[in-house]
Amino acid sequence: MKEFLGEDFLINNKTGQWLYDTYAKNMPIYDYHCHLSPEEIYTDKRFKNITEAWLYGDHYKWRLLRSNGIPEKYVTGDGGDYEKFLAWAETVPKMIGNPLYHWTHLELKRFFGIDMVLNPKNADAIWEKANKALQEKEFSARGLIRKSNVVLICTTDDPVDDLRYHKMLREEGDFETKVYPTFRPEASVLIDQPAFLPWFEKLQNMRRRKVQMFYDFLETLESRVDYFHEAGCRIADCSMEYIPYTDSCFETAKTVFEKAVSGSPVTKEEADAYKFFMLTFYGKLYAQRGWTMQLHLGVIRNLNSRVYRTFGPDMGFDSMSDKSMALNMAKFFDKLDSTGSLPKTILYNLNPKDNYMFATMAGNFPGEGSLGKVQYGAAWWYNDQRDGIENQMKTLANVGLLSNFLGMLTDSRSFLSYARHEYFRRVLCNLIGEWVEAGEYPMDEEMLAKIIKGICYDNAKSFFGLDMGD
Amino acid sequence: MKEFLGEDFLINNKTGQWLYDTYAKNMPIYDYHCHLSPEEIYTDKRFKNITEAWLYGDHYKWRLLRSNGIPEKYVTGDGGDYEKFLAWAETVPKMIGNPLYHWTHLELKRFFGIDMVLNPKNADAIWEKANKALQEKEFSARGLIRKSNVVLICTTDDPVDDLRYHKMLREEGDFETKVYPTFRPEASVLIDQPAFLPWFEKLQNMRRRKVQMFYDFLETLESRVDYFHEAGCRIADCSMEYIPYTDSCFETAKTVFEKAVSGSPVTKEEADAYKFFMLTFYGKLYAQRGWTMQLHLGVIRNLNSRVYRTFGPDMGFDSMSDKSMALNMAKFFDKLDSTGSLPKTILYNLNPKDNYMFATMAGNFPGEGSLGKVQYGAAWWYNDQRDGIENQMKTLANVGLLSNFLGMLTDSRSFLSYARHEYFRRVLCNLIGEWVEAGEYPMDEEMLAKIIKGICYDNAKSFFGLDMGD
Amino acid sequence: MKEFLGEDFLINNKTGQWLYDTYAKNMPIYDYHCHLSPEEIYTDKRFKNITEAWLYGDHYKWRLLRSNGIPEKYVTGDGGDYEKFLAWAETVPKMIGNPLYHWTHLELKRFFGIDMVLNPKNADAIWEKANKALQEKEFSARGLIRKSNVVLICTTDDPVDDLRYHKMLREEGDFETKVYPTFRPEASVLIDQPAFLPWFEKLQNMRRRKVQMFYDFLETLESRVDYFHEAGCRIADCSMEYIPYTDSCFETAKTVFEKAVSGSPVTKEEADAYKFFMLTFYGKLYAQRGWTMQLHLGVIRNLNSRVYRTFGPDMGFDSMSDKSMALNMAKFFDKLDSTGSLPKTILYNLNPKDNYMFATMAGNFPGEGSLGKVQYGAAWWYNDQRDGIENQMKTLANVGLLSNFLGMLTDSRSFLSYARHEYFRRVLCNLIGEWVEAGEYPMDEEMLAKIIKGICYDNAKSFFGLDMGD
Repeated sequence: MKEFLGEDFLINNKTGQWLYDTYAKNMPIYDYHCHLSPEEIYTDKRFKNITEAWLYGDHYKWRLLRSNGIPEKYVTGDGGDYEKFLAWAETVPKMIGNPLYHWTHLELKRFFGIDMVLNPKNADAIWEKANKALQEKEFSARGLIRKSNVVLICTTDDPVDDLRYHKMLREEGDFETKVYPTFRPEASVLIDQPAFLPWFEKLQNMRRRKVQMFYDFLETLESRVDYFHEAGCRIADCSMEYIPYTDSCFETAKTVFEKAVSGSPVTKEEADAYKFFMLTFYGKLYAQRGWTMQLHLGVIRNLNSRVYRTFGPDMGFDSMSDKSMALNMAKFFDKLDSTGSLPKTILYNLNPKDNYMFATMAGNFPGEGSLGKVQYGAAWWYNDQRDGIENQMKTLANVGLLSNFLGMLTDSRSFLSYARHEYFRRVLCNLIGEWVEAGEYPMDEEMLAKIIKGICYDNAKSFFGLDMGD
Repeated sequence: MKEFLGEDFLINNKTGQWLYDTYAKNMPIYDYHCHLSPEEIYTDKRFKNITEAWLYGDHYKWRLLRSNGIPEKYVTGDGGDYEKFLAWAETVPKMIGNPLYHWTHLELKRFFGIDMVLNPKNADAIWEKANKALQEKEFSARGLIRKSNVVLICTTDDPVDDLRYHKMLREEGDFETKVYPTFRPEASVLIDQPAFLPWFEKLQNMRRRKVQMFYDFLETLESRVDYFHEAGCRIADCSMEYIPYTDSCFETAKTVFEKAVSGSPVTKEEADAYKFFMLTFYGKLYAQRGWTMQLHLGVIRNLNSRVYRTFGPDMGFDSMSDKSMALNMAKFFDKLDSTGSLPKTILYNLNPKDNYMFATMAGNFPGEGSLGKVQYGAAWWYNDQRDGIENQMKTLANVGLLSNFLGMLTDSRSFLSYARHEYFRRVLCNLIGEWVEAGEYPMDEEMLAKIIKGICYDNAKSFFGLDMGD
Repeated sequence: MKEFLGEDFLINNKTGQWLYDTYAKNMPIYDYHCHLSPEEIYTDKRFKNITEAWLYGDHYKWRLLRSNGIPEKYVTGDGGDYEKFLAWAETVPKMIGNPLYHWTHLELKRFFGIDMVLNPKNADAIWEKANKALQEKEFSARGLIRKSNVVLICTTDDPVDDLRYHKMLREEGDFETKVYPTFRPEASVLIDQPAFLPWFEKLQNMRRRKVQMFYDFLETLESRVDYFHEAGCRIADCSMEYIPYTDSCFETAKTVFEKAVSGSPVTKEEADAYKFFMLTFYGKLYAQRGWTMQLHLGVIRNLNSRVYRTFGPDMGFDSMSDKSMALNMAKFFDKLDSTGSLPKTILYNLNPKDNYMFATMAGNFPGEGSLGKVQYGAAWWYNDQRDGIENQMKTLANVGLLSNFLGMLTDSRSFLSYARHEYFRRVLCNLIGEWVEAGEYPMDEEMLAKIIKGICYDNAKSFFGLDMGD
């Protein structure tokens, strides 16, 4: 029996362990997609206690608490931090087989040196020990990033954001980790969502002259792309249920836009036509600037309207879509490709039933001289667990080139989540070690090292073309 | 090499074996969903031979016989019982990897003490030995239930059923296993099925005054819910291809109902509107009474019309649907949830591609103080096999709390099917043992025992609130 | 650690190894579906070098080259053969976990006796050694078939093909492998594809009197079925995104046909109605003649229009569909079945999410006296890899009779691809060996041998009824 969370955690073969220890473990982290707050990085945020660091912004944890019947008061409500921590300590032992069980204890061990397995009995001891550690300077936002050996962070930012903290970080110039914004113009695309008009208002407010015409709108958005570009941004992101396809043109999109900004409701067909136009509009802008376009597809968000009305979006009530989307996705990429405006792209699917479809789709739009111009991205959200990570990599390996995979991103709001990279790297090395030990790939150290280091770091570094200052 | 069907059957690690032997094996069975006949339980049915006990009502077995080219005469036709048994004995050795291969031999071994592996050569010996045993009192319906240590059975019953056998069982009072009805109003919902009008006729016949108006109809159905409630029922069930969603109201449903009862065909859209109304109608009734609503989704039934015309429904010609249903399902639950009328719910999917979608959907509608108010239910029908059971549990563990899982149900027409619980428990203990031995969960006997016993029995007992008489 | 590609390649248990060595390895190959060129077989094609033998026609390899950023010039363009080989040698080491990595080295080892692991350093040595071998007589088309112990080959042929090479092969009579055509009338069905009119032109050109009416058209197609039948053909094939269903009749199909041949575009609904009619038309012809109908479903072809315009179809830009198709597929089979015109059928799915749906669908339309009248076919295309093959077999075993499975086909344009049968058989024996060693099936040599030999060869031989000359 293996020790819980021991040195060989998630690794079941010697070759995998050797690969992990020798080539994966010490690679720096290139975090090309996360939701960390630039403000918290700039101000070097300190955490008053482990509840703030762990539970304030983590809808993964909220879902499990609720599944355990914990009242919302102790999830996101006005319950005390200590009581919230106890609710978590009570739920943790029930999380057998869940990645949060592993992440929780990896975070306790790696960041805090706490080897205890959290439960209601030792909750007090852990509460005190963790909180004491959080008083130390090395447990500030930057301290945690440093501890995790992160060389680059791409945050996720709205087009209307003035990127002030990114600018201040750059001006200050004394944080060794590069921090860049990511352009996420989702609100401008999802014209049928309640968030559209409030977002449009914000866009208006940041301009001297009001946007009145669709053409103005597009011009403004292009200027925001340029603004982000100047701030070092080279990556965009958008998350949707599916990519619509219409034989849509500027005129149609213009009409729908005008309808929406005048406060009229738009039909599903109208919204789809507009969305398709905007996606191709952005695709072209990204392609022109050498950016990478991320697409996170297959999500239905904020499903619980009772909660949405009270608390707003992103409270942990999101589900997988099961809508057919292959054909329209293909047409969208083909439209971009055939007009020379397909940027480098990363495709992420939320519903694991779509793994193979996405992985084969990526292979249909290659770029000469580019290692995987359209990439099949890492296991996302609900798939970010032992089985999901392994399935994503096996799928990619079976129908494409795993060696060119861009590897792990953090996708988290928490500075403690960098432990997920250790988790990912262990699953990666275990899988590759298994293949080698099974005689399915030769024991060729040079090549294996190249593959492992590539997936852990080198591939992403060379793919995105972000300024590393080196 | 392990012995066929030995003590370590389906268990590949010591911890799993220890968990099974110590905590799972002897837990009683809480059979919250099956298709046993209340009449057969009340009359303590005796079986004339193994063909009657095994093959008379089992469409799982019929499908395999037909796949082996066996003429319908020896499947469900007028072939002799001995000949049917021989056809089965001829087919069994070909069932490598199929759960029926395992169930068949588990049933022979556990109920009849027969260690032989069924094939045409030993078919006679087994025929005689099994038939002889079936003459014994302990092989009656109740005898088999007793042998299986079943403390509670929920049968599946139509709203028009008078529940006479349930009443007689209760009045008789000398069967130690609790037997309750389940309210399955499927016929009243599936208004576009040929079974609707005949069912409606039955409903009419059980009333003194005819139902003439939709309002009467709903009132009658509510009174049936109350009638079932008095008989101890606390669980409902409905099985459909998908949950439709419409912005439907009483008026629309009323019109569709009136059309249907007057014998006019209803369109797909009309049927969907009516179904959605009825599902919300029932949901509210269940929620008011603290019942649990089971939804078995993703099935297309009676696909073979040649067989349907000759033999009727449920002959083993049913397939998985692959229709998109996430968004409407979410809207349905949200409708109930936002009107305070979401009952405790269990979701079962037939197509395993939907595992993750269902498991995440369940997590979107939690209830304070309730351990998993919307539960992701056990692997259903075609998924009720080694891989399917393990996948359902891994899925649940990866995105929710496996510890709160309600565990196995029998879902069978046969009194011998209780062997499926042993099968399930072995897969469960093997999986959890694997995690512990792999260092993914600590060796914490107290917690492991709680989890295993919870999934085997305790969770269901506390979830459903059925009267245990204790 | 196992040796790379050793004797125990893909086999992890002793029983599996014993089954492979004793029962699987030496079974002849019954290749009931491939894309080999009858001309190349007849003329006993010789290959000028390994690039021609490996890379000229293999879109699987092209995709991986492109994913590695190799310019099209060295994929399918006018780059030199040596340069193309080097591009391949550069890509191969990156193909960890991909079946092409295994096939490449199996082919080098089994056909050429080359034990080296291809990479840029040894590319020259392998280039020379392989090219030298290819000069030998035994490396001709027929030589390679002979080396692979292939007793029968079914090529894939268009209804307009005159089958001249098949005829000449038969007349010549000195090739010991039986070679039969397969009737693939896809172009006549996919009326909305650009290939339809050019194909129709070819059909016109092969007749003395022009087809003017739909009835003529159908009669001509029936005569082509008969023509193929005389040439020994007993298998048909069609590949589509999905099977449409309409309450279509001759009149509708006629109208759509007339519209299309007059050069007018047809709508999606019209195309669907026509396709459904044609599929039932062909189904009936096949059933009358005892043929087997293959359906390869779930593919969206030629997605990259830039490439399509320049290079035409089948260049490796094909993806999986994720369209819902269960209900219409069921209705299609039911239509054939209920009119007594359902032929023996093999269903192949491209999207692995559909595995269980297809496997259960197959079980809904059995035939008395027929071992699996509607068969769930072998892992197709992107699924033809270790995991995909195993999943297809586990799925079939879990819901049907794996023992009656028709086993592997080659589905390749290359004479070297027969190595895929070794690959498949190793996965098969490993799986069955695992079950036996795990105590899930008894160690019954007679039965196991029957199952293995059946899946490798015997089942296909008895199922298709092709003339073996014995």
